[in-house]
Amino acid sequence: MSHIRGRFEKEADKSVLEYTESVRYDWRLYRQDIAGSIAHAKMLARQHIIEEGDAKDIIRGLEAIRDEIEEGQFHFDTKLEDIHMNIESSLIDKIGMLGKKLHTARSRNDQVALDLRLYVKEKTSQSISKLRELQSALVSLAEKNKEVIMPGYTHLQPAQPVLFAHHLLAYFEMLQRDIDRFRDCLKRVDVMPLGSGAVAGVTYNIDREFLARELGFSQISLNSMDAVSDRDFVLDYETAASICMMHLSRLAEEIIVWSSQEFGYIELDDAYATGSSIMPQKKNPDIAELARGKTGRIYGRLMAMLTTMKALPLSYNRDLQEDKEGLFDSIDTLLSTVEVFSGMVSTIIVRRDNINKTLKSDYILATDLADYLVRKGEAFRSAHSAVASLVAFAEKMGKLFSELSIEEYQRFSPLFKNDVYSITIDTSLAARNGIGGTAPTQVERSLKAAKRVLDEDKR
Amino acid sequence: MSHIRGRFEKEADKSVLEYTESVRYDWRLYRQDIAGSIAHAKMLARQHIIEEGDAKDIIRGLEAIRDEIEEGQFHFDTKLEDIHMNIESSLIDKIGMLGKKLHTARSRNDQVALDLRLYVKEKTSQSISKLRELQSALVSLAEKNKEVIMPGYTHLQPAQPVLFAHHLLAYFEMLQRDIDRFRDCLKRVDVMPLGSGAVAGVTYNIDREFLARELGFSQISLNSMDAVSDRDFVLDYETAASICMMHLSRLAEEIIVWSSQEFGYIELDDAYATGSSIMPQKKNPDIAELARGKTGRIYGRLMAMLTTMKALPLSYNRDLQEDKEGLFDSIDTLLSTVEVFSGMVSTIIVRRDNINKTLKSDYILATDLADYLVRKGEAFRSAHSAVASLVAFAEKMGKLFSELSIEEYQRFSPLFKNDVYSITIDTSLAARNGIGGTAPTQVERSLKAAKRVLDEDKR
Amino acid sequence: MSHIRGRFEKEADKSVLEYTESVRYDWRLYRQDIAGSIAHAKMLARQHIIEEGDAKDIIRGLEAIRDEIEEGQFHFDTKLEDIHMNIESSLIDKIGMLGKKLHTARSRNDQVALDLRLYVKEKTSQSISKLRELQSALVSLAEKNKEVIMPGYTHLQPAQPVLFAHHLLAYFEMLQRDIDRFRDCLKRVDVMPLGSGAVAGVTYNIDREFLARELGFSQISLNSMDAVSDRDFVLDYETAASICMMHLSRLAEEIIVWSSQEFGYIELDDAYATGSSIMPQKKNPDIAELARGKTGRIYGRLMAMLTTMKALPLSYNRDLQEDKEGLFDSIDTLLSTVEVFSGMVSTIIVRRDNINKTLKSDYILATDLADYLVRKGEAFRSAHSAVASLVAFAEKMGKLFSELSIEEYQRFSPLFKNDVYSITIDTSLAARNGIGGTAPTQVERSLKAAKRVLDEDKR
Amino acid sequence: MSHIRGRFEKEADKSVLEYTESVRYDWRLYRQDIAGSIAHAKMLARQHIIEEGDAKDIIRGLEAIRDEIEEGQFHFDTKLEDIHMNIESSLIDKIGMLGKKLHTARSRNDQVALDLRLYVKEKTSQSISKLRELQSALVSLAEKNKEVIMPGYTHLQPAQPVLFAHHLLAYFEMLQRDIDRFRDCLKRVDVMPLGSGAVAGVTYNIDREFLARELGFSQISLNSMDAVSDRDFVLDYETAASICMMHLSRLAEEIIVWSSQEFGYIELDDAYATGSSIMPQKKNPDIAELARGKTGRIYGRLMAMLTTMKALPLSYNRDLQEDKEGLFDSIDTLLSTVEVFSGMVSTIIVRRDNINKTLKSDYILATDLADYLVRKGEAFRSAHSAVASLVAFAEKMGKLFSELSIEEYQRFSPLFKNDVYSITIDTSLAARNGIGGTAPTQVERSLKAAKRVLDEDKR
Repeated sequence: MSHIRGRFEKEADKSVLEYTESVRYDWRLYRQDIAGSIAHAKMLARQHIIEEGDAKDIIRGLEAIRDEIEEGQFHFDTKLEDIHMNIESSLIDKIGMLGKKLHTARSRNDQVALDLRLYVKEKTSQSISKLRELQSALVSLAEKNKEVIMPGYTHLQPAQPVLFAHHLLAYFEMLQRDIDRFRDCLKRVDVMPLGSGAVAGVTYNIDREFLARELGFSQISLNSMDAVSDRDFVLDYETAASICMMHLSRLAEEIIVWSSQEFGYIELDDAYATGSSIMPQKKNPDIAELARGKTGRIYGRLMAMLTTMKALPLSYNRDLQEDKEGLFDSIDTLLSTVEVFSGMVSTIIVRRDNINKTLKSDYILATDLADYLVRKGEAFRSAHSAVASLVAFAEKMGKLFSELSIEEYQRFSPLFKNDVYSITIDTSLAARNGIGGTAPTQVERSLKAAKRVLDEDKR
Repeated sequence: MSHIRGRFEKEADKSVLEYTESVRYDWRLYRQDIAGSIAHAKMLARQHIIEEGDAKDIIRGLEAIRDEIEEGQFHFDTKLEDIHMNIESSLIDKIGMLGKKLHTARSRNDQVALDLRLYVKEKTSQSISKLRELQSALVSLAEKNKEVIMPGYTHLQPAQPVLFAHHLLAYFEMLQRDIDRFRDCLKRVDVMPLGSGAVAGVTYNIDREFLARELGFSQISLNSMDAVSDRDFVLDYETAASICMMHLSRLAEEIIVWSSQEFGYIELDDAYATGSSIMPQKKNPDIAELARGKTGRIYGRLMAMLTTMKALPLSYNRDLQEDKEGLFDSIDTLLSTVEVFSGMVSTIIVRRDNINKTLKSDYILATDLADYLVRKGEAFRSAHSAVASLVAFAEKMGKLFSELSIEEYQRFSPLFKNDVYSITIDTSLAARNGIGGTAPTQVERSLKAAKRVLDEDKR
Repeated sequence: MSHIRGRFEKEADKSVLEYTESVRYDWRLYRQDIAGSIAHAKMLARQHIIEEGDAKDIIRGLEAIRDEIEEGQFHFDTKLEDIHMNIESSLIDKIGMLGKKLHTARSRNDQVALDLRLYVKEKTSQSISKLRELQSALVSLAEKNKEVIMPGYTHLQPAQPVLFAHHLLAYFEMLQRDIDRFRDCLKRVDVMPLGSGAVAGVTYNIDREFLARELGFSQISLNSMDAVSDRDFVLDYETAASICMMHLSRLAEEIIVWSSQEFGYIELDDAYATGSSIMPQKKNPDIAELARGKTGRIYGRLMAMLTTMKALPLSYNRDLQEDKEGLFDSIDTLLSTVEVFSGMVSTIIVRRDNINKTLKSDYILATDLADYLVRKGEAFRSAHSAVASLVAFAEKMGKLFSELSIEEYQRFSPLFKNDVYSITIDTSLAARNGIGGTAPTQVERSLKAAKRVLDEDKR
Repeated sequence: MSHIRGRFEKEADKSVLEYTESVRYDWRLYRQDIAGSIAHAKMLARQHIIEEGDAKDIIRGLEAIRDEIEEGQFHFDTKLEDIHMNIESSLIDKIGMLGKKLHTARSRNDQVALDLRLYVKEKTSQSISKLRELQSALVSLAEKNKEVIMPGYTHLQPAQPVLFAHHLLAYFEMLQRDIDRFRDCLKRVDVMPLGSGAVAGVTYNIDREFLARELGFSQISLNSMDAVSDRDFVLDYETAASICMMHLSRLAEEIIVWSSQEFGYIELDDAYATGSSIMPQKKNPDIAELARGKTGRIYGRLMAMLTTMKALPLSYNRDLQEDKEGLFDSIDTLLSTVEVFSGMVSTIIVRRDNINKTLKSDYILATDLADYLVRKGEAFRSAHSAVASLVAFAEKMGKLFSELSIEEYQRFSPLFKNDVYSITIDTSLAARNGIGGTAPTQVERSLKAAKRVLDEDKR
């Protein structure tokens, strides 16, 4: 920090240094920072702002620093506050006065915006890839268990029979939207801010389009004040991550419920379950629980950043330094969760016997009975009402639908005929044969479509 | 609720009715609900699921109900729980048994998803229009004050001179991203869920593509379980609204600060300021303060919905009923804030004299002095350091830069020559002439581009 | 608002009026506002600031207004912005010029702080009473099912047997902390702010202690600037409500899980369950789901208020107007949830047969087996490890513990003797006989203690 | 983790290990964990559950481990997952089989609850001490500037004159409530959970009261299921920290605004300000900005924990592991912020000249003029209205109140007499002489009271 204290008479208090330093966490921007500086040096030379030879020395110096960092040889100094100053200071150590020229036509404000944008771009793409892997795991689990029928739940009560694969593909759709959302983020983060200077632009004849090309950006920022104070791209990532984590928390909840002895629908692979410190008989779905818990963490990071940004006057304020730790944590948490879910999902063992048990009660066919009456001419609401009474009666008698006599049926509607007995779980499934329905042909179609999406992406 | 209690023996407790009813707030979906039902009736007839004549009667009944509601003649009954049941029950009153056929091949689960999607689509478009109006107000205020120069702030400290118009255009950019984000929302909400039934699809040969066309959707949902439990589109709106409101809170903060006597940069029109109940001399920026305060409300609604969705198993759960009140409030709050801001911004009076006063101190040209030294051959960091010492010296002497002698300048660098006196606010502005910089020609260009965007949108 | 526009030349814009008015929701402070004004009038007379007779007329006028409001005869006018101005304006209509004296030595800033404190005090006490009723319902459900044994779960996996009453009493403890927390809130809200004026205090010789006594406060505020800008008491209520709602969401989750067919532990009374619009066989735990969903709403309101308060300079800012709607909603939501839970919990029917089924597997006694080995001299970790292997073996053999031969036991530890067969669910329960343990004698003791707490509170 | 995988056939996946390990952050509970284990060992011996000599060896082993950790000699192994297992495993390495006895009558569930409670107790007390120091800094800054008069603001507009000390003491009051709130937290965290076992209590004859005494707790938990799943004390800390940080964010905002050139009320000490990387003339209030920004972080952590706890069934779930990182970060952030604020506040230099300038306009005495008319017999609202017109007139004439002639005054009320000129800033201050008012005698009284509070606390 000393180098920017020129005008000050006193050293910063030690607790101040600790309070303000960020290299503890922003060191991980080193690759982006160096890439940005290399492009900047090239541009300065190209525009004759510095000498060609100077640029080459600067670039060589920066590359050497990158190597040192990657080899664990670099000494990060919290007194130098952040990754940018650590690198610049080391560059000056390495190549002398020349190093002091690198910051020409640049401010830390546009530099940090650049580094963070480069980082978020990369991590957003990585998030998309990981989500693709999880989609693959879902599809492969669905494929493996294509014939498994389970109750479709509403209110955690069995409602209508569905294919297990159909249930899993609901998550495929959610993740598809997540990917779509992350792609929208990519669009907005893909803006090159360098040249905005501290707030007003720079006084040199720089070439921003060149910088954008060098660094792989498709657009440049259009207002310097906005460019140095905009962190929408951080919020964009954090909102996409929050919604994605919400989806994962739903899957986590189902995995936990399905793993319970009472449901017993699935068993987790030993590699993805944990034992108990005191109860040797336990096999706990810890991964799913942790993921469910970490949902809070990701929401909290979003809320933190929204709060931090609230009511900040333009342009750069130090509050913005709070953007990074939360973002990094959101990224790490999301990536590791998606990764570990891919492993967990693809190794799930489905306990068909247990699932079948839950389908023994055929009250789950009640909607089909109502639809039957409608087809015979009853109005839907009246049909619904008749079947509701039929269920109450059957329950009281302790009988399944299939155990009721036709006379008993007819007490509730004269439209019931013997063909009512032909309604089964299988006919129920097959009948839901519109796009998006659970009929086996539809689910088969969806699985194919899903695989096509995954394949196309690979190419 | 009585009609869906067929199987139950007891009436719901009164406090239960109050706890569970939603017509108090979901009545506002009546247009969407009726439009959805009309399309559904048409489709049922087209597919020969009901008679053509029945469909016509149903449609006539629904239209009559819509008229009644719009004329304030409709009696909403909380005992009928929600808008859907209120309308259906009234339809049955009007056209008898026929009305009971409308719910064929439909469930409240897909019906409510449809209504809400229709509503969010409309309100998202409306949000975009209102934001366009606010952009216009910003551009017109910028146009009117094109020559006004003000300090560009970082850390609420004067950093470099900028054009007032440049500052305002930073908000134009933020709103541009908001509009872009709302357009992304439109993409994801534009999915027709009808045909998903309660959870598994429906057993009738319905035509979902027809429904989508009738209702103006470009896509249909691809998984019934996802379709009835997906509320991403609510979260999408609420996140876009939160980020947008954050931008408005920044503008609000500046309006408050600029309206303070100490800054005195602007004066609000009487129509957009408020007096004090006890201090007659006060003119308070209440609108801006309220908007800043309401930022919390919109964040809170987002956090609420994220929390509500956390860890819900598939598919529909009653928790989802909590989606609407928060969403409606977010929409209302955002729309009214943007609207009132348009009026407030377009009537702002800029106090040029007061702004000019803040530019009296020319230390704001310090970066330009450093850049001057760089151009003379100094390395940037050394130049920065020299000027920092110069500032400290000038401050101690109580002199402006322009009041320092050339000898005094040269104490800090021999590179200072007489041409240093030619650095002024105006040359400083003009020098920042890259894209996005504050040079008058750049700002002029940006204003033109902004107007082009606004004009194109009108066409 | 017109009366406080004296200095302004223009009327406020219509959209501004709508944006800023609060009587739409703050009308519900009318009793507090009138009580505060009556006490204020008495004090003004007592201190000879106004005439005794004037005070009497003012009080009569205020009482008449209160009656009008309670009889639904009062016309609230949004143009008069808030409840305070509505009442004051009506008072002036009623008693003429005299009414204009009431605001002497008072500002809307301290007036609104007073009204809200009175309101929160009352609602906090009411929250405590409602929680007591829910505690009663829990205790009575526990009493009725004192002998019911169920698995104690960790990770939603059966861990060790516990009494159902023990499980319920865990919620008694949580609510006990909630009550304690609300009592802490009472302490901090119980501070009389009147006399703080707009910001600096008032210039009249008022008697603040008298006001406090009249209005039932035990303390007066000690700094006028703090008093008009402090909303900690709102946050205190909202945090206590959030934590309380979190507890209720846990209970809600268990009720939902226990109501599932797969668990089948409980059945909700028909009055507290809901049917399906399409599936007549369903009995859905809607109340519990709604409550779980509303948790988000209450969290959101807290987050909103925290955000609103962030970084507000002293003293009063219009942002603070955002305190009320969220608070009112939090209060209403909490009170109605607790009330409806009391009814739901007290009518729960426990399905002992189903619970018993889950205890058929005696692996739940694994900890007891490990403790058995420890008592025979094994170190705990080794005992744990031996039993873990035993469980794996038994599982593979498809045997219960009770079905293993002693030789089979001894494969895993020579310390196993025939007395191992005396370990049963009942001995397991009875052995956990420390304070807070699930042994029947302990639970009996806890039930008695709980009833004592409830009884003491009634007196 | 291997030691609790006894029953499992596969090793955990590497990514699973990384996902689930917590020693990376929970290592900092080592002192609490060891203290808890020592007390536990003593108790086990006292109750003859283990031998006296064994307990001594265990305790010696634990003390040795503590020393190793404090000397940086201890190797933390993430494969051993958490701090508890790291210590236990090292103990077994050190003292052999004996070490395996320590976990008798204990589970990780009650152990972790204990450790965290011990930690929170300590950190809560530390938070209170640090807040006392900040209160001291405020009082000392107030003392030093006892005569400074400034505008009291509402809506960031000058409202009435106040003493600078009065303004500062408003923050003293806020922190006083924070301390009170942390004391309430202490009450609820001060509960000893050991003996709750995994969920149901333990089967050994342990002495929980002894454990409580040894570890300095005043109460023991009363329900084992609640004790292992309760994290209210974490939320209690995080809510108190959030409200406290909100207060600090308000102070931060004022310091930033007051440090602006336009206000110029204060100057920060060089040790507590930062320079700019590009603008050598800048002196930025970075500490205050960072603190304002970190408010979001603390809110986010609270929201995270509330979300994590939502809808968790009893008792322990792995989600709870998410309690620690957020809590630790909240604690660290709050403590460091309060500490750095103490330094910053106590070194603030007040620029009396600049403050005085803002008092030149005497419109700030408008309330005093209205009160003057009231004393002469005018009703308050009429007086307010008359003065409002007077202000408008004076503004139009470009005159101060003191520059108006008595005739001009009388145009607005005949009650104005020559004594109106005796109303000054000083009389205005002095007149607000009720408890909590800004009159110098009142402020003097408040300062004394504040110092008394601080002194009492030291004793």
